[in-house]
Amino acid sequence: MIIVIKQGSPEKQVNNLISWIETQGVRVHVSHGEYNTIIGLIGDTAKIDADLVEGLEIVETVKKISEPFKKANRKFHPEDTVIDVGGVKIGGGNFCMIAGPCSVESEEQILEIASSVKRSGALMLRGGAFKPRTSPYDFQGLKAEGIDLLLEAKRETKMPIVTEILNINHLDLFEDVDIIQVGARNMQNFELLKELGKTKKPILLKRGLANTMKELLMSAEYIMAGGNEDIILCERGIRTFETFTRNTIDLSAVPMLKELTHLPVVVDPSHSTGMSKLVKPMSLAAAACGADGLMIEVHNNPARALCDGAQSLTPAQFDDVAKSVNKVLEVVKG
Amino acid sequence: MIIVIKQGSPEKQVNNLISWIETQGVRVHVSHGEYNTIIGLIGDTAKIDADLVEGLEIVETVKKISEPFKKANRKFHPEDTVIDVGGVKIGGGNFCMIAGPCSVESEEQILEIASSVKRSGALMLRGGAFKPRTSPYDFQGLKAEGIDLLLEAKRETKMPIVTEILNINHLDLFEDVDIIQVGARNMQNFELLKELGKTKKPILLKRGLANTMKELLMSAEYIMAGGNEDIILCERGIRTFETFTRNTIDLSAVPMLKELTHLPVVVDPSHSTGMSKLVKPMSLAAAACGADGLMIEVHNNPARALCDGAQSLTPAQFDDVAKSVNKVLEVVKG
Amino acid sequence: MIIVIKQGSPEKQVNNLISWIETQGVRVHVSHGEYNTIIGLIGDTAKIDADLVEGLEIVETVKKISEPFKKANRKFHPEDTVIDVGGVKIGGGNFCMIAGPCSVESEEQILEIASSVKRSGALMLRGGAFKPRTSPYDFQGLKAEGIDLLLEAKRETKMPIVTEILNINHLDLFEDVDIIQVGARNMQNFELLKELGKTKKPILLKRGLANTMKELLMSAEYIMAGGNEDIILCERGIRTFETFTRNTIDLSAVPMLKELTHLPVVVDPSHSTGMSKLVKPMSLAAAACGADGLMIEVHNNPARALCDGAQSLTPAQFDDVAKSVNKVLEVVKG
Amino acid sequence: MIIVIKQGSPEKQVNNLISWIETQGVRVHVSHGEYNTIIGLIGDTAKIDADLVEGLEIVETVKKISEPFKKANRKFHPEDTVIDVGGVKIGGGNFCMIAGPCSVESEEQILEIASSVKRSGALMLRGGAFKPRTSPYDFQGLKAEGIDLLLEAKRETKMPIVTEILNINHLDLFEDVDIIQVGARNMQNFELLKELGKTKKPILLKRGLANTMKELLMSAEYIMAGGNEDIILCERGIRTFETFTRNTIDLSAVPMLKELTHLPVVVDPSHSTGMSKLVKPMSLAAAACGADGLMIEVHNNPARALCDGAQSLTPAQFDDVAKSVNKVLEVVKG
Repeated sequence: MIIVIKQGSPEKQVNNLISWIETQGVRVHVSHGEYNTIIGLIGDTAKIDADLVEGLEIVETVKKISEPFKKANRKFHPEDTVIDVGGVKIGGGNFCMIAGPCSVESEEQILEIASSVKRSGALMLRGGAFKPRTSPYDFQGLKAEGIDLLLEAKRETKMPIVTEILNINHLDLFEDVDIIQVGARNMQNFELLKELGKTKKPILLKRGLANTMKELLMSAEYIMAGGNEDIILCERGIRTFETFTRNTIDLSAVPMLKELTHLPVVVDPSHSTGMSKLVKPMSLAAAACGADGLMIEVHNNPARALCDGAQSLTPAQFDDVAKSVNKVLEVVKG
Repeated sequence: MIIVIKQGSPEKQVNNLISWIETQGVRVHVSHGEYNTIIGLIGDTAKIDADLVEGLEIVETVKKISEPFKKANRKFHPEDTVIDVGGVKIGGGNFCMIAGPCSVESEEQILEIASSVKRSGALMLRGGAFKPRTSPYDFQGLKAEGIDLLLEAKRETKMPIVTEILNINHLDLFEDVDIIQVGARNMQNFELLKELGKTKKPILLKRGLANTMKELLMSAEYIMAGGNEDIILCERGIRTFETFTRNTIDLSAVPMLKELTHLPVVVDPSHSTGMSKLVKPMSLAAAACGADGLMIEVHNNPARALCDGAQSLTPAQFDDVAKSVNKVLEVVKG
Repeated sequence: MIIVIKQGSPEKQVNNLISWIETQGVRVHVSHGEYNTIIGLIGDTAKIDADLVEGLEIVETVKKISEPFKKANRKFHPEDTVIDVGGVKIGGGNFCMIAGPCSVESEEQILEIASSVKRSGALMLRGGAFKPRTSPYDFQGLKAEGIDLLLEAKRETKMPIVTEILNINHLDLFEDVDIIQVGARNMQNFELLKELGKTKKPILLKRGLANTMKELLMSAEYIMAGGNEDIILCERGIRTFETFTRNTIDLSAVPMLKELTHLPVVVDPSHSTGMSKLVKPMSLAAAACGADGLMIEVHNNPARALCDGAQSLTPAQFDDVAKSVNKVLEVVKG
Repeated sequence: MIIVIKQGSPEKQVNNLISWIETQGVRVHVSHGEYNTIIGLIGDTAKIDADLVEGLEIVETVKKISEPFKKANRKFHPEDTVIDVGGVKIGGGNFCMIAGPCSVESEEQILEIASSVKRSGALMLRGGAFKPRTSPYDFQGLKAEGIDLLLEAKRETKMPIVTEILNINHLDLFEDVDIIQVGARNMQNFELLKELGKTKKPILLKRGLANTMKELLMSAEYIMAGGNEDIILCERGIRTFETFTRNTIDLSAVPMLKELTHLPVVVDPSHSTGMSKLVKPMSLAAAACGADGLMIEVHNNPARALCDGAQSLTPAQFDDVAKSVNKVLEVVKG
């Protein structure tokens, strides 16, 4: 951490600050520039609250040097993390296609989609049982029944399943779920993250709509600090001023995150764009830039087929996407 | 809801869509423009998923007409909501100054600040017991002990207290808390909102960093839909590209929200700017544009006094702010 | 400038970098931390391209210390700049109300509005002659004729006039204009700024929709570097994700800019909100938080009166705003 | 255009509005819903100012139906535009690699880079002669001399050249330039766009940092309305809250724009990320999602080689990128 002192600050106050820092067990190194005095802090600066110091009358600015994420940091763990979910691997060169419906709606629906996406090459099944909805008046998912249906699809197809948790009190229901998803709106629900840190389940952690990559890594750190180090990060679009797309997919986050962390990074092209016609190009782009997997919405609901669900693909469209993604992967990895 | 059909869409598909809408119990009104056909939906459109319709090949765009918030909507409840907390009123012309430390740290600290801000005119005491922190390695608050200390300050000063909840399983600890705060990161923690909807406590609901006013109102609606209609909305800054301030305080949200809803709207100038020197000007501005209250951080910690806490005021600074705010209120209300 | 070197970087490359910096005439100060080596640069670092250095394989990050604006910087010019426009002063405690129509439309219109806003206390007249429009098919203003009409209003009312320039080749037309406005879309039209730096006219420089305060100050610096130091900065809303308001007015920019620079700062509540009903509360808020003036749209067009122009006030509404603003100013300055 | 009238509005005012619209030569179609009355406008609504109507007391909201861009609109021109620049084609399946240095620095530099990138498969040479810089104190480019050097490289290599214009008064200098670039900061410099509409040169139009795709298309429309229909759109990153990357590259803009318009769309991975290490993954992603070309910075400056220019590739790195892009293109097009 580096503290830049304002020009003309009273020497006594500067010395007071330095003394206070030293009482926190941190060494300092002071250098005098043309306009500013700079105090470099050496040692464990975790006890120094940067915001607090930045508020001092005499402080111009505070610059943090070391990244606050440790367990998620590639610097300290250079090897890719590979997560093994019932034999399906993700990370470290293992690309994983995850597909399934937005919401689990019925036994017939989930079984049909599951076997269909499996034929097209999906390795895991996704499906929403608990649905976070902006409006209290919207459908909130089949809940426990939805998880039961996913488990049935798992038995039928042998595909591991991933589904979202909204409330830590529901954890018992997730006992046979393979990967627990934390949605964008809960990325900084730290109480939930802490509890998930105590489980042994891999966690698929989605980036919040307005969260930086650093905050995403800090949220992964919350889970890892509790002892659970099997985290899959997921880029799913950020909120910007653009209105043609629902969110703005940030594909540069894929190579950037993979440099910063050893954790696998997947992309959700369905939610990030909100339009089924953008799912294929964004899937190919994600594969081309190094993503470790894709998470794609697929539906087979005849009522929706009428409407061609805003962000969901039909099984036939998914089959086409999966084939094209594989071609890109061959070339990129080749 | 209005559905705009793409030019040149097959008539059969258009008719299929219309039939499907009618089976949902919604009437339609079709008009043909120069380039587009427009389908107006009349009746209860809650069952029609706009995102899904927008994804149809034949649909250009979908425009929602009616606001999705009902109980929070001023259209249906023109009178200002006035919330009475142990005799202290907020809303409907009653301005409420809430002040206190960021975190409760000790008995001495909270009692001293409480009596000090009360002398300066604060009507409620705030203080953090459970602290949401970006990093798992940062101080997480005194937790239950922090609430006990707040309750002691309440007994001493007779000021109602407001403090943040992070986990619905802690609800028992909040039994004697007067107002429960939902922080920005939990604004869309719908499970928490639903549980708070079952309580009888007033809720201070902070706007999320990247949430629109509409989403804030929808989150209020979640609590109100459960039966608890005593919600105080709080503007605390949104995330933008600007870096000189921590967040960008959106003061236009104050008059805008007060037109859209009957609920009281308060402003937190401390967190939204992240700088103590901006607290006074933003407090005066908030009072001038019609806020129903302010929520201001005040500290008395000698260790911090050294540093002049980034976003906290000293008791003397708070006294000056409170006096100036009162002058502005007299002029604006007069 | 501070350069943080990555852990484990080859010493030879670090020494190469240090040598290269020294050949640019800049002294360095190297300190070794636990994880990183830090190189402090002392002297005139203007020649060191921070982006370029940040791209080095061995560089973790680059932190700039000194602000890149010099002439606009309050550190080097602590006294408020007061701009005198034909006897009307702005800055240094002089509050200036600027009002007038969005576009000059006719002689009758501009004369009537001008005398009306003068009666209500406006000290300057604004009016658009050249209009920047997103669509080439929209009305582009009366152009030269519009300026003639403004000059006529100036003769009649003795009010100085301010109007926007779009093209440096039009400069001759602005000979008798008192203040030249640079619009938000041209804030980084550096060629225009350079030319305006050669004039003797005060410039009203609007903040771009997506520009930081630092960039606004750098654009002021462009004009000042050319020799013209009479710049008035104008906050007019930034682009965010919020859709209820046209832009998000950033009122914290007022006290923040006034700390960073000695230049006057005014606020345009009409364009920043896009709604006439928000003009009054935002005007009061701007006055309360220390703005040096307001720039408000007023119309008298009967065709528009029908419609109550989206962001324009009627003369009667403006009169009310002006009176209320004066009351707030008395209290705040008092 | 659809106008939604507020519930309970006086019938007389609604009728006044309808009459006024009809006097503008636009037909209306009124329908009464449960809560709102809706007025549909049929015919040429260009004369109706939506912002103005939206400001009416009686108006809830205004929804625009038809897109405001005509000449750039794929609806009216379904065939891809193919731009032929001295035999090099772009658009309609023709992928064009554009490469060269950020700034032209010397004859040796530009000739060496030009022949190098040509060998690697670049079809056009880019290089900055006039440089827009945030600070007036930064290097502003070699200007006219830079263009002369580019023309020399063109003679040597037979590659068409593209370079940025900042000031319409410089147009004479661009007589032998093949493609004129309009930078992000000038995307809404409408005076510049209008003048370029009178030329016969293809224009490479970069998306502004905070501009929507719709605004980008409207700026293309400005040029096309003047008679010059050879426009290449360029995605180069938008401004968001993320700070790890310089801007956030919006790759979903590629397929989205290509659906909205017949104009070619290229991507600049160098400026959008600001980091050379992200150029390759973003180039592959852009090729994978359907871009018509790439615009990549390449340097050979030994002084910079030391530093490995923040966003520029070395010739060897560019060669690797070009080869990999070609492989992806084969697969995606195949």
